[in-house]
Amino acid sequence: MDGGETTRTGALMNAIRRKIARRALGPGDRLPSVRGFAATMGVSPSTVVEAYDRLAAEGVIRARRGSGFYVTGADLPPLALAEMGAPRRREVDPFWVSRQSLDADPSALKPGCGWLPADWMPNAALRKELRAASRADDALLSDYGTTRGQLALRRLLLARFAEEGIAATADQILLTNSGTQAIDLICRLLLRPGDTVLVDDPCYFNFRALLRAHQVCVVGIPFTPTGPDVTAFERAVAENGPRLYVTNSALHNPTGATISPQTAHRVLSAATAHGMTIVEDEIFADFEPDPSPRLAVLDGLDRVIRIGSFSKTLSASIRCGYVAARPDWIEGLIDLQIATQFSGPSPLAAELIAGVLAGGSYRKHMEEIRRRLTRARRDVAARLEPLGIVPWLMPRGGFYLWCRLPDDVDSALVAKYCLEEQVVLAPGNVFSISDSARRFLRFNVAQMGDERVSAVLRRAMSASARSP
Amino acid sequence: MDGGETTRTGALMNAIRRKIARRALGPGDRLPSVRGFAATMGVSPSTVVEAYDRLAAEGVIRARRGSGFYVTGADLPPLALAEMGAPRRREVDPFWVSRQSLDADPSALKPGCGWLPADWMPNAALRKELRAASRADDALLSDYGTTRGQLALRRLLLARFAEEGIAATADQILLTNSGTQAIDLICRLLLRPGDTVLVDDPCYFNFRALLRAHQVCVVGIPFTPTGPDVTAFERAVAENGPRLYVTNSALHNPTGATISPQTAHRVLSAATAHGMTIVEDEIFADFEPDPSPRLAVLDGLDRVIRIGSFSKTLSASIRCGYVAARPDWIEGLIDLQIATQFSGPSPLAAELIAGVLAGGSYRKHMEEIRRRLTRARRDVAARLEPLGIVPWLMPRGGFYLWCRLPDDVDSALVAKYCLEEQVVLAPGNVFSISDSARRFLRFNVAQMGDERVSAVLRRAMSASARSP
Repeated sequence: MDGGETTRTGALMNAIRRKIARRALGPGDRLPSVRGFAATMGVSPSTVVEAYDRLAAEGVIRARRGSGFYVTGADLPPLALAEMGAPRRREVDPFWVSRQSLDADPSALKPGCGWLPADWMPNAALRKELRAASRADDALLSDYGTTRGQLALRRLLLARFAEEGIAATADQILLTNSGTQAIDLICRLLLRPGDTVLVDDPCYFNFRALLRAHQVCVVGIPFTPTGPDVTAFERAVAENGPRLYVTNSALHNPTGATISPQTAHRVLSAATAHGMTIVEDEIFADFEPDPSPRLAVLDGLDRVIRIGSFSKTLSASIRCGYVAARPDWIEGLIDLQIATQFSGPSPLAAELIAGVLAGGSYRKHMEEIRRRLTRARRDVAARLEPLGIVPWLMPRGGFYLWCRLPDDVDSALVAKYCLEEQVVLAPGNVFSISDSARRFLRFNVAQMGDERVSAVLRRAMSASARSP
Repeated sequence: MDGGETTRTGALMNAIRRKIARRALGPGDRLPSVRGFAATMGVSPSTVVEAYDRLAAEGVIRARRGSGFYVTGADLPPLALAEMGAPRRREVDPFWVSRQSLDADPSALKPGCGWLPADWMPNAALRKELRAASRADDALLSDYGTTRGQLALRRLLLARFAEEGIAATADQILLTNSGTQAIDLICRLLLRPGDTVLVDDPCYFNFRALLRAHQVCVVGIPFTPTGPDVTAFERAVAENGPRLYVTNSALHNPTGATISPQTAHRVLSAATAHGMTIVEDEIFADFEPDPSPRLAVLDGLDRVIRIGSFSKTLSASIRCGYVAARPDWIEGLIDLQIATQFSGPSPLAAELIAGVLAGGSYRKHMEEIRRRLTRARRDVAARLEPLGIVPWLMPRGGFYLWCRLPDDVDSALVAKYCLEEQVVLAPGNVFSISDSARRFLRFNVAQMGDERVSAVLRRAMSASARSP
């Protein structure tokens, strides 16, 4: 081939190497299709093929028969999950919202964050439990817990499961440090680098961060108001042979949608037919006005693993999550938790949480929270409407509104602009595997009380609309 | 080929299947060369070729042009870190002590466990902090913490580091859920499956469990009363190109030995010469009568990463550990902690710990604990002597005695026998990569108050000595 061809090939190879170096492409990630990439880069398909073949020869990427090229992850520098640098300049990646909102200045407004304001939480009940804990046995204050975690809390969870029609036993529940850690343990038990995992598109951004850490190949399923697009889901299960599907069936993050009974049945049937495991994240369950379909209930905790935590409704400062699954998987998860954390979650934390849940005030508290959120969802939608920001749907519960911006506005630019004014937003593409949510923002209606939000948003949108 | 050939081929295939099933060979691992394996197994190369071809046909392994055969990782069972089964029948593996002691019946005696009795801990100070917490701001009770964890606790750690001569900044410390999780995050950042890691032989059994979860190749360095055998260490570093060395320099677990200045200097020099990172676990530091040499101090937190926790001296129920390292590594660890746990440790937990550490009573408490342990080490050594159980050395601090049993006694049999009588021991080989500690037991002198221990031990030893 001629010199120009060589140069173009080299340029493509460098572009891909850079993507890999800064983890825009992680191990197990699929490279763009030859045709698509050729179109994007304005070169001939043969140039892309040449570049891919050479990178494959170098072992940087690997061809899989009939399914394109994948990053091998050979000779990687320390696993940097994200582009580093000053927060403002940092790439808008799956960590962007987490790091901005967790480390936000106390004076910052956080309509993009994923939790309720501190004064919405059941703090009075918690203070009562803390006083009780100050009088507890020495053993509770200073000993490691049992490998499965406090029995009192596991029994409370079992009682809730029973109300839903799930008959489980205490040895099917493992307490963990968080819902995220629960999923991490499951990934460690069931996944290997290069495995395929299905997620919703859009999905909770930290599912993407977590799966990147496991170096698996992530396939996004378009999400609809009644759950994942069933046809796309069934095709992906048949074609990619995924090991795992991770989802929220109820009050899905970020859309707030809830799976329909028909979709739930077909998703579970497809998983069963192909021996795929499902992780159903229940972290928003207590925000539901009434129970909606659950994969774990249809399945009876066989191939569906239920995980959850108390961070959204009780306290995020007292770390505790759980896994409910087949007893043999729990045994494997216990060993993994010992190996990687030594013990389970803080017995003191589990005791505080069990105390609040068992107390009569918790149900009343959640009823009040649900009423406040219903009002807040309506009010925020009304305040966003004049800005041309429209909810994708009106959720039946929870604190998220997944909203579409006017066509000429890029939510990543809006988010970066707002950050300069101490307003943390959640731009659509941090949730989207296919980067197809450029015009969406996820709003937390409980964090929108301050009038400044609308003003900053308006300025940010006009500034972003003007920018190239 | 003849029947004998078929049988030999089948035997080879089964041998390889077993290696894969128990993860001696992981996904992507290269199988032995045809010639080498033929020699090892005493069969003809053609038999090995036949076995490899059939396993490849089954999809268990895959040939790569010109570079041999590799494990595909297809259809792997869940990652089982240990042999399952009823506790009593369970294999004496690196999880044995953890699971037996964490889940022991409250009436059981635990001379094999790795913590102090609850009534030795600073519970009064903790109760005081819990009462204070019940009056804390809503934010502390219910919000997620910052990504690095509570600044108050990080500052207290920095002050202690400064006393040792380590000049670090607050952005060099990351709070974690436990010391073990701190090492797990470091492994996730720096290791890839198949990397080589050095540990002491014997070493803390959970280092073995954790490294097994990371599917790395672990090389044990014989441990001496002055630290790792320097000659063996230097040879292993040169020959195996390890990425990491994980150790306790002071009050080493299980031996109680402390590294000498000369050994510390040579270990760090070897690591520097070969670009190896060292993880120095400080979990027993507060039990030292006075400071001993530290790799992290010699190195100034460049290639040495310091980890620790408060589980041994303050509370194991309030989960919190830390990592101190180069700022760029901390950034990577923060992303990994977000991806796998979402937030750092409980802000409430960090606040309770900071409160106790800052309070004047903690230093006095630790002085008293050190005095009690000095007495207990002497008393227990005196009580074991008549049983023919002799300390390998008398540690200068801490609660462990690493003891040698009479020649005809297998500590694993003794431990299984004692478990039947509700006495949990720590048999030597759970600490030994080379299984060369069959005649050792690790005793926790703080857990030997009950006279029954000696009686059960005597019976167990005579029973075990008699058994084949």
